[in-house]
Amino acid sequence: MKNKLGKQTFRFYRMPRIVGSYSIVGEKEGKGPMAKWFDMILEDDTYGEKTWEKSESKMLKQAILQALQKSGREKENIDAVLSGDLINQIMSSSFMARDLSIPFLGLYGACSTMTESLVLGSIMIDGDYAANVIAGASSHYCTAERQFRMPLEHGNQRPPSAQWTATAAGAMVLSSSDKGDSAVAHGKKMPQGKEMKELYITHATVGKIIDTGIKDANQMGAAMAPAAVDTIIRHLSDTGRSPDFYDLIITGDLGFIGKDIAVDLLSGAGVEIEGILKDCGTMMYDKKQDVHSGGSGCGCSASIFCGHVYREMRLGNIKNALLISTGALLSTISAQQGESIPGIAHAVAVTTEGVN
Amino acid sequence: MKNKLGKQTFRFYRMPRIVGSYSIVGEKEGKGPMAKWFDMILEDDTYGEKTWEKSESKMLKQAILQALQKSGREKENIDAVLSGDLINQIMSSSFMARDLSIPFLGLYGACSTMTESLVLGSIMIDGDYAANVIAGASSHYCTAERQFRMPLEHGNQRPPSAQWTATAAGAMVLSSSDKGDSAVAHGKKMPQGKEMKELYITHATVGKIIDTGIKDANQMGAAMAPAAVDTIIRHLSDTGRSPDFYDLIITGDLGFIGKDIAVDLLSGAGVEIEGILKDCGTMMYDKKQDVHSGGSGCGCSASIFCGHVYREMRLGNIKNALLISTGALLSTISAQQGESIPGIAHAVAVTTEGVN
Repeated sequence: MKNKLGKQTFRFYRMPRIVGSYSIVGEKEGKGPMAKWFDMILEDDTYGEKTWEKSESKMLKQAILQALQKSGREKENIDAVLSGDLINQIMSSSFMARDLSIPFLGLYGACSTMTESLVLGSIMIDGDYAANVIAGASSHYCTAERQFRMPLEHGNQRPPSAQWTATAAGAMVLSSSDKGDSAVAHGKKMPQGKEMKELYITHATVGKIIDTGIKDANQMGAAMAPAAVDTIIRHLSDTGRSPDFYDLIITGDLGFIGKDIAVDLLSGAGVEIEGILKDCGTMMYDKKQDVHSGGSGCGCSASIFCGHVYREMRLGNIKNALLISTGALLSTISAQQGESIPGIAHAVAVTTEGVN
Repeated sequence: MKNKLGKQTFRFYRMPRIVGSYSIVGEKEGKGPMAKWFDMILEDDTYGEKTWEKSESKMLKQAILQALQKSGREKENIDAVLSGDLINQIMSSSFMARDLSIPFLGLYGACSTMTESLVLGSIMIDGDYAANVIAGASSHYCTAERQFRMPLEHGNQRPPSAQWTATAAGAMVLSSSDKGDSAVAHGKKMPQGKEMKELYITHATVGKIIDTGIKDANQMGAAMAPAAVDTIIRHLSDTGRSPDFYDLIITGDLGFIGKDIAVDLLSGAGVEIEGILKDCGTMMYDKKQDVHSGGSGCGCSASIFCGHVYREMRLGNIKNALLISTGALLSTISAQQGESIPGIAHAVAVTTEGVN
């Protein structure tokens, strides 16, 4: 196959361009170390809505519409929206897409959804099935807690290994053409007048499900780390790249515990990656913010990539990045039935070099 | 774009071939008028498992592994599995894929999932990103009832407009190459020695979400019919085809009420389709089986296409078919919050003619 490299990796010769990006986060995330990179920080996590689910859906819609605006495209130019979230029947995405009147493909990859949508969106652009698509993902602390764990009103204790689902959404417009997001469109967040780098997606690696038998929903980093490691090793093997090809290899939401496990597992497999590997879950909050093992949720890697990484790449500070969003495919029913937590991770390689 | 036709339709010049197909249904479905076409009928809907969710997951796994076997391919030849179901966090698919060790892309399109997986799988094959993919979907009456409505033990009444979620799964192997399923591989279900037609996917139309404000979860056919109509009209417009190009236009699970609404709406739009349009929900059960407005669920259109339609096409009795699986994107939370039911429908055109 012309566009397949090795066993699990796609190669995008036409290099879909990221022509618009938008990130939006909640109050707590807006007080963390990543704050300066986000496009929008909510003053109130309800976002003016009566239910948390509607708040989350509105965040995702805002991210998608603003990414669209920044791309200089119109709704009519968008061939498809691909998105997902953690809520049963991806309610945030379905209700977001209801008002858009754009062909919609709903995805469920738990917290791996941002890269799942980028993988499939890139294929659509690279294969000449679409001129422009939007890829997005969202999560909300309050919708996730009441669905997966306990209603917030319980005020229940969280163990040290627990992670904090980020109230966050991110969206990117992928395009086959070069016209899009200018530095000016970034507004106050970017220096004006400076020439910005362009972002291209060159490769994607689709992950397998890896389940090592962990059953504790407060140990999600440990449940997902082996999947992240498997996808990273497979990506490097398929592309023939060494880790230091990348300025940044960034996992989705392994958190402090999961990231340490991933580094150990990679080291055991002969892949030394410690200085290059970062994890969005460890970056989202300050340790003082009492989030235990770090951030999680689809929105965690979505907003950090669409905020921090996207801008650092545009500024020329990161040339080659590999994003590996990581998902824990558990549900309340599977947990109640004594099932372990299957993990999955998909990787997307982004470059500003403009050559493949 | 080379591979886009009109506003919402993809054209597959390389024509991904369906090289393996398998359908499996529950006891009740095995007593309906479609019974003779299914590959496997369960004697017991538990399928030997302790929970309904595990039963459903096992059905989907069986469909996928058997479709794979019929295709003459090995697990190692499969580039990706794309599947989904109705259960929270697509638990049936996630746990099915856990044991496969094949790259996995989870989808959520409610009962439109069979065509969503075919659309994305066809793009991967046609665009030369994959040599072989498996597309599948499942549903189970007992998992769906207790999740979306009432535990079965309640024995609650169902209104005449309610539909019966089919206990069923279907899977197809899509391939870029011509080698695959032979007549012999169909076993007793197909005449031996007769030359069988080959099935090719030529077009796919991705649907928009259409929400006409229906809030009653027992009126799903009415909620989905406008989305089906929108996608059918868009498909015909994009391809320049008239309805009679197709020997069969078959919707997923509109049921008796939804199908009547769809025919009316299409007629109002100048599209006369009554003799050509069928609906899997109206075909799955005999009226005597007391299922009110007919069948529903991801597995309804999946199993009827993989059983009845696939075989009728292989036998040469149907040359051109358009499958439009239809999804109602509701959840228990959205219903409790007073939200209406967004509908969606994706269409896939299949031919035995071997020309595009």
